[in-house]
Amino acid sequence: MLDIAQYDQINPPYRLLMGPGPVNADPRITRSMAAPLIGQFDPVMTDYMNQTMALYRDIFKTTNQQTFVIDGTARAGIEAVLMSTIRPNDKVLIPVFGRFGLLLCEIAKRCRAEIYTIEMPWGQVFSPDMIEDAIKKVKPRLLLCVQGDTSTTMLQPLDEIGQICRRHGVISYVDATASIIGNPLEVDKWQLDGVSVSLQKCFSGPPGVAPITLHDNMVELIQKRKCVESGIRRDDEVDGSDEMIYSNYFDLDMIMRYWGAERINHHTEATSMLFAARESARIVLQEGLDNAIARHQINGKAMLAGLQAMDLEIFGDVSHKMNNVVGVIKPKNIDDAQLRNLMLSDFAIEIGSSFGPLKGNVWRIGTMGYNARKDCVMQTLTAFEAVLNKLGHKTKYGEALQAAWNCYSADK
Amino acid sequence: MLDIAQYDQINPPYRLLMGPGPVNADPRITRSMAAPLIGQFDPVMTDYMNQTMALYRDIFKTTNQQTFVIDGTARAGIEAVLMSTIRPNDKVLIPVFGRFGLLLCEIAKRCRAEIYTIEMPWGQVFSPDMIEDAIKKVKPRLLLCVQGDTSTTMLQPLDEIGQICRRHGVISYVDATASIIGNPLEVDKWQLDGVSVSLQKCFSGPPGVAPITLHDNMVELIQKRKCVESGIRRDDEVDGSDEMIYSNYFDLDMIMRYWGAERINHHTEATSMLFAARESARIVLQEGLDNAIARHQINGKAMLAGLQAMDLEIFGDVSHKMNNVVGVIKPKNIDDAQLRNLMLSDFAIEIGSSFGPLKGNVWRIGTMGYNARKDCVMQTLTAFEAVLNKLGHKTKYGEALQAAWNCYSADK
Repeated sequence: MLDIAQYDQINPPYRLLMGPGPVNADPRITRSMAAPLIGQFDPVMTDYMNQTMALYRDIFKTTNQQTFVIDGTARAGIEAVLMSTIRPNDKVLIPVFGRFGLLLCEIAKRCRAEIYTIEMPWGQVFSPDMIEDAIKKVKPRLLLCVQGDTSTTMLQPLDEIGQICRRHGVISYVDATASIIGNPLEVDKWQLDGVSVSLQKCFSGPPGVAPITLHDNMVELIQKRKCVESGIRRDDEVDGSDEMIYSNYFDLDMIMRYWGAERINHHTEATSMLFAARESARIVLQEGLDNAIARHQINGKAMLAGLQAMDLEIFGDVSHKMNNVVGVIKPKNIDDAQLRNLMLSDFAIEIGSSFGPLKGNVWRIGTMGYNARKDCVMQTLTAFEAVLNKLGHKTKYGEALQAAWNCYSADK
Repeated sequence: MLDIAQYDQINPPYRLLMGPGPVNADPRITRSMAAPLIGQFDPVMTDYMNQTMALYRDIFKTTNQQTFVIDGTARAGIEAVLMSTIRPNDKVLIPVFGRFGLLLCEIAKRCRAEIYTIEMPWGQVFSPDMIEDAIKKVKPRLLLCVQGDTSTTMLQPLDEIGQICRRHGVISYVDATASIIGNPLEVDKWQLDGVSVSLQKCFSGPPGVAPITLHDNMVELIQKRKCVESGIRRDDEVDGSDEMIYSNYFDLDMIMRYWGAERINHHTEATSMLFAARESARIVLQEGLDNAIARHQINGKAMLAGLQAMDLEIFGDVSHKMNNVVGVIKPKNIDDAQLRNLMLSDFAIEIGSSFGPLKGNVWRIGTMGYNARKDCVMQTLTAFEAVLNKLGHKTKYGEALQAAWNCYSADK
């Protein structure tokens, strides 16, 4: 038995989260989670669910009816779409340009897909031609692609990809978790069939809920796999013609019928996370989606300018990086862990390390959501400069801050 | 484009949630979710994760190292355990005595198990002998059982079941979502191998996070299915000898390595829900687990006495009902929806309807968590009596309240 008197209420220390996410939550969002619970079929609750669908249609720039949230983290959203659409032995094509492309391979493997990949070195993106050529060769049923891969900071251009897929009869899915709100995403205009995201990046919300949107193309595939739960089966219900979805929790057919007029009792919606999802979308739309993207752009530009003014090498193809995160190549004489520990312990600022081939060699610094702000950029640059100098990477003090500051003036 | 000015902040109306859950959250729990976020590998965060593991070991009365939370609703906890332990064609035995037994069948089906069931009419439970006889006959690899099935209000006695399973070399799993904290659950003493729960019943927490505990017997099965994610593979890592788990999100081998010393980057822990889970366990242990169970017992007894004093028939075998919920058979002359609507609109009280064979014929009234309180019981009985009388079921006004009130005096 533990001594319960030793366990006090939750009381995290102040942190400025300037890594690749989660970032500091907008206080309006965390506050929304403190609202009282209501019953899951209370008219007020189902109205909040409908409002959330409407808000995310505007966020995704889509008219897709099937726009709602999955109760789980970003990869729950990914897995819900993949499990519900990929049948065993379905051919899928995955352009891999970082860790999160590999994650799509990993999840597709669990769905027992026949997986084909094309790969780019970390720090680069694909041209639309390269993707179209691979589609012609592989003839996949689905194309699975990441928009912004935080592991490399790269943003894959997607404006032609949906169209290419439609032309070849391929269903497209995009993981836009890291890029949405910080960079343009036009689901309908770009003809994307399925997109999933989560809140802990440019939405400034908590991790743990995953908004998704599904075009009718994808909905149709999913509905063919309908599998009725015996505990709640109605007399007139029959299963679909295609093989079942090999998950109940991620069965999007059931989840659509929970979010739709039928309101079947699939799961108990995570009320507080729904509140957070609604509030996250609401405050972005209040700011204006274009304004939010522009804010990420200018703050990302300022952070980049500041880092460059410290004679640091930037990772990857800068012309294709996301607005909201930048990769910094670690100077050889600096110890990775020592720098990040000093940033956290003496300046209360968290920046990110890296995965795979970049591990220990690249820092990732975000300017996302609530932290895509002038004061956060300049505070981070100042602390980073101080720590770099202390550990042996000498800079001309103050130039980084000034370079960033100049970006904002030039913008006016 | 919607008119964002029409969307105000979250502002649910007051409700007293006296159904089968979710119930009103303890304000200390919802408040904990308003705490600022921290980074997922921040030492403060990993310390909160470790504390949460320790708190739930006391809640589950276990020394199982592998005690942590799954980011998803109650059925995410169930599916994580089932997906990670059941291989295709594994034999599973499921004693079904209500809708949530059928849910276990449904999830096991998605895992491609070979499913065997024994069934009891809704409103009854199994004797240990019946379960042992079925085990002898079927020789399953796993036994899957619900402890408290809210669909029928019944509590399956489990104190001998774990032992029976161990004797026959069967791995046992229990869904204790609806029963935990309201009724005794002794994971180690009863020799249960895996148990999952969630917060929205007697914990008075939000839905959306599922605490689980796993005995080494179960951990061993899961670890044989180890499957390394290529994006984060270390050079010395090899896959397990048994077939992979057909889900990445619910891969308990990976999730254990995220919660353990290795801290692999599986998902981004749902920070605010973790805070809620930690706070939920903390306040139960502050009250004392035995005190919390006793509180559910006396309030359940009072609610039952009040309902019986209104000449209402109670559903099922009352000697085996859960402390925290009661089923009331609807008098023939009363309209189900009309009664529940009046309760909600004029008294702000939500009670539950039912599933399957009981739909429209049984109301379910809970006395759970924050609402397992004298004032909630008496307020609910008073409102229920008023509505019943208005709709044509005549009672002797005041007797229900007095019968409930007497229970509390007798208890002193």
